[in-house]
Amino acid sequence: MSTFPVAVNMADKLTQFSELWTQKKVADLNDYEVKLAKLKGEFVWHSHENTDELFLVISGRLTIQLREHDVVLGPGELFVVPRGVGHCPVADEETAILLFEPAGTINTGNAGGPMTKVAEALN
Amino acid sequence: MSTFPVAVNMADKLTQFSELWTQKKVADLNDYEVKLAKLKGEFVWHSHENTDELFLVISGRLTIQLREHDVVLGPGELFVVPRGVGHCPVADEETAILLFEPAGTINTGNAGGPMTKVAEALN
Repeated sequence: MSTFPVAVNMADKLTQFSELWTQKKVADLNDYEVKLAKLKGEFVWHSHENTDELFLVISGRLTIQLREHDVVLGPGELFVVPRGVGHCPVADEETAILLFEPAGTINTGNAGGPMTKVAEALN
Repeated sequence: MSTFPVAVNMADKLTQFSELWTQKKVADLNDYEVKLAKLKGEFVWHSHENTDELFLVISGRLTIQLREHDVVLGPGELFVVPRGVGHCPVADEETAILLFEPAGTINTGNAGGPMTKVAEALN
């Protein structure tokens, strides 16, 4: 890393952006990334063939739709979607989450489409 | 994984143990682990030669002593200690944290000693 890491206050970082469904990197860990995102509405069905994906809800309420059932997460709750498992996040209210996954993981996985965005670093 | 992952409520998990300085695994992500721990007092100075280590404070207040300066974390704040960097966590009050690092990472890193404990899975 080119600079020494600093403490990350998640609430402060969440004030720095308002776009929905855009992942913002706040820390690196080896070849993994810690990212924040704000969600509202429904994403797209997709899967990640080569990695599990961790969702941790900071505020709001997130439903991770799976093919067989839904997983509902409130603040302080986390869930790992296993690699290869189709999922579609949906949030009725604006919801803030932390994501943890390998660097370079694409938000829409195998689905692509207009909601595909590369994660951006937050200062 | 042998069983499908379930949602993890961190507050519920924290009611399931009281030991200090013992890491409890609550989720797997690829070959990484999400662990919870309760801390009070001072740990031992150590480093991890082969991995960065993420600390996220859930409740309480954690000071991560580094050789050059300290990093103080409250609830909702996280910090990644880079690999090879000596650090010594200390908490004046009981503090609950989430840890994220590769499976098999030893809590005392290169230091060893009586506080060395292997992470245990929480049901």
